[in-house]
Amino acid sequence: MNAEIVTIGRELLDGSRSDTNTVYLGSRLWALGTEVVRSTTVPDEPAAIEDAVGRALEAADIVITTGGLGPTSDDRTKHVVARLFARKLVLDEDVLARLYAYFEELGREMPEINMSQAMIPEGARVIMNTRGTAPGLVLEKDDAVLFSLPGVPSEMRAMVENYVVPFLEGRGLVRLVQERVIRTTGIPESTVAERTGDLARKLIRTEVAYLPSMTGVDLKVVARGDTPAEAARTADRSAERLADRLGSYVYARGGESIEKVVGYLLAMGEATLAVAESCTGGRLGWRVTKVPGSSDYFLGGVVAYADELKKRLLGVKAGTLKRHGAVSAEVASEMAAGVRKKTGASYALSITGTAGPGGGTAEKPVGLVYVGVAWERGERVSEFRFPGGRGQVRERAAQAALDSLRRVLLNIEAP
Amino acid sequence: MNAEIVTIGRELLDGSRSDTNTVYLGSRLWALGTEVVRSTTVPDEPAAIEDAVGRALEAADIVITTGGLGPTSDDRTKHVVARLFARKLVLDEDVLARLYAYFEELGREMPEINMSQAMIPEGARVIMNTRGTAPGLVLEKDDAVLFSLPGVPSEMRAMVENYVVPFLEGRGLVRLVQERVIRTTGIPESTVAERTGDLARKLIRTEVAYLPSMTGVDLKVVARGDTPAEAARTADRSAERLADRLGSYVYARGGESIEKVVGYLLAMGEATLAVAESCTGGRLGWRVTKVPGSSDYFLGGVVAYADELKKRLLGVKAGTLKRHGAVSAEVASEMAAGVRKKTGASYALSITGTAGPGGGTAEKPVGLVYVGVAWERGERVSEFRFPGGRGQVRERAAQAALDSLRRVLLNIEAP
Repeated sequence: MNAEIVTIGRELLDGSRSDTNTVYLGSRLWALGTEVVRSTTVPDEPAAIEDAVGRALEAADIVITTGGLGPTSDDRTKHVVARLFARKLVLDEDVLARLYAYFEELGREMPEINMSQAMIPEGARVIMNTRGTAPGLVLEKDDAVLFSLPGVPSEMRAMVENYVVPFLEGRGLVRLVQERVIRTTGIPESTVAERTGDLARKLIRTEVAYLPSMTGVDLKVVARGDTPAEAARTADRSAERLADRLGSYVYARGGESIEKVVGYLLAMGEATLAVAESCTGGRLGWRVTKVPGSSDYFLGGVVAYADELKKRLLGVKAGTLKRHGAVSAEVASEMAAGVRKKTGASYALSITGTAGPGGGTAEKPVGLVYVGVAWERGERVSEFRFPGGRGQVRERAAQAALDSLRRVLLNIEAP
Repeated sequence: MNAEIVTIGRELLDGSRSDTNTVYLGSRLWALGTEVVRSTTVPDEPAAIEDAVGRALEAADIVITTGGLGPTSDDRTKHVVARLFARKLVLDEDVLARLYAYFEELGREMPEINMSQAMIPEGARVIMNTRGTAPGLVLEKDDAVLFSLPGVPSEMRAMVENYVVPFLEGRGLVRLVQERVIRTTGIPESTVAERTGDLARKLIRTEVAYLPSMTGVDLKVVARGDTPAEAARTADRSAERLADRLGSYVYARGGESIEKVVGYLLAMGEATLAVAESCTGGRLGWRVTKVPGSSDYFLGGVVAYADELKKRLLGVKAGTLKRHGAVSAEVASEMAAGVRKKTGASYALSITGTAGPGGGTAEKPVGLVYVGVAWERGERVSEFRFPGGRGQVRERAAQAALDSLRRVLLNIEAP
C-alpha cells in the first residue's frame, strides 16, 4: 500500500507557514510500513484542491488531506471532497451537538459561522475533533480511502493517533520495518560518520541515516524483516552495535529527549535538581519541565540575567564578578553552588555565557559558555565554544548543560 | 507570473526531514509578486521527478526544483531535467575547475564520485555553488524557466539570493503586492472572523487570510496595486481598518512577536522586568530574552516549580498556599510582589497554573492558570482556562502573561 498527502492552504505556499503536517504524516505512515509517494501543497482554491486530490486518489491507496475544513470562507476542502465522491452535504446531528458542547465548555455561544462545520458529505464517516471544531472525514472509493483532516497540527495529530492509525491497522497494515533512533550530542557529524560508516554499510537489512541538528546528531536505524518481530530484533542488534562505536556521546537509544533521560536518572536516584541560568534566560527550566511528572525531581531555580541578580539571588561574590567577569568558570561555579544552597536541591546546574549578537570581546567571544554542576560531594565546570547566532548559542548551551548533568549522574567523564 | 516548486528527496516524505525549502522559496517568490500555485514533493525516483517537473513546466512560468543534484547515486534530478529539455549531458570545464578548487580549499583530493557533478545539460546556464559541490542549473523552454537547485538549504539559499532573484528582477518582476501581518491574542478565530469578515470581503484589492496558532490569530493582509507604492498604501489602509475592528486584542501590526512589543514598551519607559514562573518552568524568561538587547530591561527572576521554593525564594506565605492552593489568584499576586521585591524590578510578572497531565481536580482543572502583574502603584491578577495538553497550556500561559503585561504597560483593561 502506498500513500499520498495533500496539504491545503495558501499560507503554506507564500512563506507564512512551514508545512509540519507532511513530516508528521510521513513518519506515522512510514511506521505502518506505508510509503508516501508524493506530497502536494495547493492553495485554498477548489480547482487546485480538486486536481490534487483527484490525482492522488488515482495514484495511491491512502490519501490524507490536511487543511481547509475550518468555518471561514477560505476553507473549501469539504465541498471539493463531496464533489469528487459525488455526495451531497447533509447536516450531521452528532457533529452539531459536539459543536454546541465545545462552545458551551468554553462558556461561549457558538458563532453562526461554525454551523457550516456540521455539514458532512452524505455517507462519510466522521472523526470527532477533540481539540477544535472541524470534524475529520473518511470516504472510500474503489480501493482508495481518503482521510480529510483539519490543518491545525494538534487537531490533526489527535485524529491520526486516535482514528487513522487504528483504522489502517484494522485494514491489515503491518509494520515490517522497525526503527531505532540513537541520539548523540557533543560530537560532530563527520566524526560520527567516520566512527560508524564502515559498520553502517555492513549491517544486514539495515539502513542508517545521519540526521544532524543544532543540538546533536541522530542516527536513524531502519531495519527490515519478514515479520515485525524479526525486524525488531534486527533493529535492536544494529542499533546496539552502532551505539557501541559512539560510547558516552550516546544519550538515548530509543529516541528519547535528553531532558527525559536526565529526569529518569534523577528520579532513579531520588535526587532533586535546581538550575541557575544567565544567557539561556529560562530555557533549561523550560526543557526540564517539558517532561510530565518532572515535579518529582525539579524544584526550580533562578534566572539571573542581570549581574546584580547573580549577587542578590545566588550569592555570587562581587569580587568574583569583578576579577573574572560574569562569563567565567568561577561565576558558573558560584552560581551552581548558590542555587543549590538556596533551594536545598541535591544537584544544581548553572549556565553563563555570551549569546550575542552584542557583548563579545576578543578574550570572551560570542559563543563562549560555562556550565557548572554542583552536588553534595563535588562540582564540575566545563567550557564550551559554540558556533552560530544568538538562538543557536542559547539552544546549544542548554543542551550542553543537560549533557553535563547526565555525565555527572552516570559518573562518566566530561567529553 | 506564477510559480511551482518541486522538492525532491525521500527524506522529506518519510518523516526524517521537514521541507524548509518550500517555505523559504514561497516567501522569496511572494516578495517578487509571484504566486506559488503548487508545491510537490517526490522521492529521488526518475519517473516521479519527471512527472512532477513536467507538469509544473506546463502549468507555471517559473519552476524551481530543489534536491537530487548531489554526487550519490540517488541524485537523479539532472538526468531528468536533461531529458525533459531534450539535451545531452556534457562536461562543463568551469564547473570541473570549481570542483577541484573546492576540494583543494578543504585540503582533500576530489573523490571520483564528484566528477559527475561537472556534467551539465547542453546549453544550460550554470549557477556556481559557493558553499558546496552541486551546481545549480537554469533552462528555458517556451515561456517557462526552470531553476534546478541543490537541496541543502544554505546552498540553495545562496543561489536564490545571488542569482535567481536578480535574474527574475531582470525579467521585470516587481513586487506589486504588499503584506501586513496583524497579530492578535486572547480572541478566538471565529470571533476574529465575525468581527472582520464583512470588512475583509469589502476591502478593495486586498485579501485577508486568518492564521490561527496556539498563541493567537494572525491576519495576513495582502494588498495589490499598479505600483509598489500604491500597494503599500492600500495595505496600510486595509490593515488599519481591520485592526480597528479588533481593538486591544491587536498587539502588533507589522508581524512583531509579543515579547518584542513588550520589550519595546519597557525600554521606552526605562522600566525593568522580573518574572516568577511556576508551571511554565522558565518559558517566560526564555521568550523575553529571545529579543537581542533584552538585557536593557530584563533582570531575571525565579522559577518556583516546587511550592517550597515559592516560599523560600519568593516569600509566598505558607498560609496563603494552604488556604488557597498554589494555583490561585492569591499566590500569583504574592509571587509577582515577591519577585519584584527581591529583584528591584519596576514590573514583575508571575504565572501559576496546572499544566497537566496530572494534578487537575474538579475545582482546579488542568488548564487553569493565574497571571499576576505587579508594579509600583498597583497589581492585576487574571484567571485563564486554557484548552489542550501540557505543551499547549504552558505555551498559552506564557503568551497570556506577556499580553497581560502589555495591557498594563499600555494602561488598557484586561480582556
